[in-house]
Amino acid sequence: MLFNVASDLEYTVHFPSTMLLSIHAQRNASQSVVEEHFSIEPRVQFEEFLAEGSENRFIRLKTGRAKQLKISYRASVDCRFSLLPIRDINLVPLVELNRTALPYLFPSRYCQSDKLGRLAWDLFGKLKHPYERVLAILDWLHENVGYVPGSTSSDTSAYDTVTQRQGVCRDFAHLGIALCRALNIPTRYLSGYAYQLTPPDFHACFECHIGGHWLVFDATRLSHPNGLVRIGTGRDAADAAVASIFGSVSLTKIQVDCTLSPDQKFVGMTRQRAKTTAVSLESFAAAA
Amino acid sequence: MLFNVASDLEYTVHFPSTMLLSIHAQRNASQSVVEEHFSIEPRVQFEEFLAEGSENRFIRLKTGRAKQLKISYRASVDCRFSLLPIRDINLVPLVELNRTALPYLFPSRYCQSDKLGRLAWDLFGKLKHPYERVLAILDWLHENVGYVPGSTSSDTSAYDTVTQRQGVCRDFAHLGIALCRALNIPTRYLSGYAYQLTPPDFHACFECHIGGHWLVFDATRLSHPNGLVRIGTGRDAADAAVASIFGSVSLTKIQVDCTLSPDQKFVGMTRQRAKTTAVSLESFAAAA
Amino acid sequence: MLFNVASDLEYTVHFPSTMLLSIHAQRNASQSVVEEHFSIEPRVQFEEFLAEGSENRFIRLKTGRAKQLKISYRASVDCRFSLLPIRDINLVPLVELNRTALPYLFPSRYCQSDKLGRLAWDLFGKLKHPYERVLAILDWLHENVGYVPGSTSSDTSAYDTVTQRQGVCRDFAHLGIALCRALNIPTRYLSGYAYQLTPPDFHACFECHIGGHWLVFDATRLSHPNGLVRIGTGRDAADAAVASIFGSVSLTKIQVDCTLSPDQKFVGMTRQRAKTTAVSLESFAAAA
Amino acid sequence: MLFNVASDLEYTVHFPSTMLLSIHAQRNASQSVVEEHFSIEPRVQFEEFLAEGSENRFIRLKTGRAKQLKISYRASVDCRFSLLPIRDINLVPLVELNRTALPYLFPSRYCQSDKLGRLAWDLFGKLKHPYERVLAILDWLHENVGYVPGSTSSDTSAYDTVTQRQGVCRDFAHLGIALCRALNIPTRYLSGYAYQLTPPDFHACFECHIGGHWLVFDATRLSHPNGLVRIGTGRDAADAAVASIFGSVSLTKIQVDCTLSPDQKFVGMTRQRAKTTAVSLESFAAAA
Repeated sequence: MLFNVASDLEYTVHFPSTMLLSIHAQRNASQSVVEEHFSIEPRVQFEEFLAEGSENRFIRLKTGRAKQLKISYRASVDCRFSLLPIRDINLVPLVELNRTALPYLFPSRYCQSDKLGRLAWDLFGKLKHPYERVLAILDWLHENVGYVPGSTSSDTSAYDTVTQRQGVCRDFAHLGIALCRALNIPTRYLSGYAYQLTPPDFHACFECHIGGHWLVFDATRLSHPNGLVRIGTGRDAADAAVASIFGSVSLTKIQVDCTLSPDQKFVGMTRQRAKTTAVSLESFAAAA
Repeated sequence: MLFNVASDLEYTVHFPSTMLLSIHAQRNASQSVVEEHFSIEPRVQFEEFLAEGSENRFIRLKTGRAKQLKISYRASVDCRFSLLPIRDINLVPLVELNRTALPYLFPSRYCQSDKLGRLAWDLFGKLKHPYERVLAILDWLHENVGYVPGSTSSDTSAYDTVTQRQGVCRDFAHLGIALCRALNIPTRYLSGYAYQLTPPDFHACFECHIGGHWLVFDATRLSHPNGLVRIGTGRDAADAAVASIFGSVSLTKIQVDCTLSPDQKFVGMTRQRAKTTAVSLESFAAAA
Repeated sequence: MLFNVASDLEYTVHFPSTMLLSIHAQRNASQSVVEEHFSIEPRVQFEEFLAEGSENRFIRLKTGRAKQLKISYRASVDCRFSLLPIRDINLVPLVELNRTALPYLFPSRYCQSDKLGRLAWDLFGKLKHPYERVLAILDWLHENVGYVPGSTSSDTSAYDTVTQRQGVCRDFAHLGIALCRALNIPTRYLSGYAYQLTPPDFHACFECHIGGHWLVFDATRLSHPNGLVRIGTGRDAADAAVASIFGSVSLTKIQVDCTLSPDQKFVGMTRQRAKTTAVSLESFAAAA
Repeated sequence: MLFNVASDLEYTVHFPSTMLLSIHAQRNASQSVVEEHFSIEPRVQFEEFLAEGSENRFIRLKTGRAKQLKISYRASVDCRFSLLPIRDINLVPLVELNRTALPYLFPSRYCQSDKLGRLAWDLFGKLKHPYERVLAILDWLHENVGYVPGSTSSDTSAYDTVTQRQGVCRDFAHLGIALCRALNIPTRYLSGYAYQLTPPDFHACFECHIGGHWLVFDATRLSHPNGLVRIGTGRDAADAAVASIFGSVSLTKIQVDCTLSPDQKFVGMTRQRAKTTAVSLESFAAAA
């Protein structure tokens, strides 16, 4: 799938600050950036780098004396994904879990899985297969949490959302992650561009490590798991915030877009199909 | 410094479970394990592995049908450290920060630095040098937080301790880390064995990334920064818990020891000296 | 019903302190204290008084120089109660609510009803009659919260319990109260002695104001609503703690008992019957 | 002092709801409502009543089918107050405390005094006289908490503010109350109109029970303790919210005013004078 993504951000700078931006599409084994353009007006000092031990691309910039910043990113990104029949997934006992997945078993800032143990096992423990458990978590989130723009803040965590029962994509992802980790399923946060997301915005989903694969899920049901362009991967939004600000800077405008290249055809996953077939944003040789 | 460390743990197993143990001394550029012995009684399936992107050594074990587990670890560890005169530390602007330090700027499960910003800047923002700020944080912790065994639980986080003002080494470390991160100083959690710690136990300290070096601090003042044998490094205790349990297992006995090899002589850091000289557990001489 | 109640408490006093005890059976229109005996060893200064605007009886004492306190209370209490067929309850619109019930609509220290609104309406809003809603809350608590002695502390509130899903009678009562208030049902906390409670201890239940009556419910299902001897009424445990301590005093022993007078016969409420018949600890016959 | 107070509120009603308004000036021994006018447009069913055990005046209204509500209140209120030289205050031991003050020793929804004990005693325990302690708390709040409109929500409590260190009058009052209660000083919340408050709005202060009197303090330093017209008294904002809404109603406009009657002359309390002289909104015979 070839997607064209775009984001335009405007900031007011209150005093000279440093910013970390995470809006560039990842370059990884299953996602190629065919073409991209990034600009900041006025010109300020910046550099791109990869976060340690990950493929997340960060822009680090110093505002200097700029009072306003206009940031623009455009890219064409070729995304591959794999479809995995659930019946082919061989479960891996925790004791043989790939060590790369290990950090995603632990609680994190916005995903206090350690506090959700009883609730998660009570609600989902009867199901046996981890994939079934994740599907049940998605249904539970859909039935019990309202998608209410503006109802939460950057401080809101899974521990809040599990009771307050409203939020946006980030909150749905955090609660989904926390519930999965509480069930000993390694789960990580994914930020990205999402095809056909309405209204268009940056999006947050999550990935569970099941049977040796990172399977992707959208707890909001607002995007297609196979219509995502990955920006960042992390334990939660603390690792993959669109902008981390060291100083004092306010966002004044945001516009995000994700369209399909005109010559492409997109077939989304139905929920019916998701019951038997998982999506991974990793591109397997096996799938080729 | 050659230290002899030991830990003996006993667990009651309620039903077959998986455990991750983090009690082995790290092997890294400045710390060599000269000799070690590890045993579990009864014999159960286990393996040792390194966590992804770190030198933390984990033991992963399946309890199987065992009802009781006796775990024993002994090691002789050769630890090098470096002393750094503060006046020689060249500060690195955030915008040039080594990317390995970046994850330690973000909030984590037990270190909600995002919620401590105003407090941290009000208390410590007037000081200019990050090392001075850390020393002031250590003094503030000493003056304002009581070391009270049993006063906190595994659920306690920096956000609690900053108000409740009591805790153990883990809580002191978490609050120190959260305050440093709130001041944009990358800071990480260190678990280890500590020479002359009374009563002997596993210990928790923290390390700040200043001037390109990881400098080590003990917020409790109960150990010497240069008397530590590193077990684990992480964002907070979620990454470096002595035991992570997947199932149902209770700790029934714990005994920890850390002594100096008889032929060695130890000179601890005085607080007076710490004002002008930092300690790093990285061995620069070795690297030079 | 004539109940014989008893409580024996022992405290260690760390330095001279003031204590408020709430262990005396209330004297009110439907509950008569036939006989009672109260003693403190050694003799210390104390007085009994009624809390403002309530019939809660407090003992206020100064420990003076005593190092240990032995407190003993014995009483024979004649308790009347009323049975109300649900079909006879005429609902009172909120706008006509008796003003005495009003304070029990608001959130309190341990019952943050303001944070449970969406959850409560989602779970119980489809039911129409407030009594039905309360019965559904009781079922939900029974199915979703585990009775686990020692799992909570004096700091635990409804906001914790709704997620952590374990606790003791106090926690069950707090969560029940918070859910009822979130549904605009005035609800208050009741502490007391409970007949046939196993193991014997002080007990906590709650009362809802429905149709002009305070109806009593035990969220733990461990006692009979008509087998309670009321000690205190309040917004939550903050108003009706067994002991409020101003100073430093530790409880070292507690023994509580509640038996039926030998000549009496007790018929508990079955859950089946509770579906159509409510219990009020107010004695209407007496008032009629 | 004769004050003219006014408030104009506009609400959008999403579906038929019940509202409790607390905007009427209290009538009590030291405050007379000389004249007042209250109106709601369109005409809806409402009644005025006093809350149980208090002199708080509530308006209870049903929106019916109204889609918009315009609420208007005007009053001329004659307020008396007393000045008390601190040296004349005879302290009352806790054990002799008037029982009316007792409920104000306990923690409440927004004032978790039980969690602030160590902090409060560490910061203010060295001072001996409760009035000195309260003055020190006021200074501490002024130095450590920023008055930042919009920084908090209706969910914010003292436990948040003590760390996050910003808020509005309500948050200052809650934290002041929690710290006083933690020091065993009975303290209550006061909502009212405030003379010379800029910008004009409803205001929140607190009152401490010291030496048998309720002494009034403004933690924000934005009003004069002797320039307040009392609306409500309670444990915290849960008891004295401007509007409690049962249903779905949004505030769209608010305008508040408090001026001095033209023939009056106002002499505010200076902070210098407050060191030796307390203000009580109760009118003592002694002061007459």
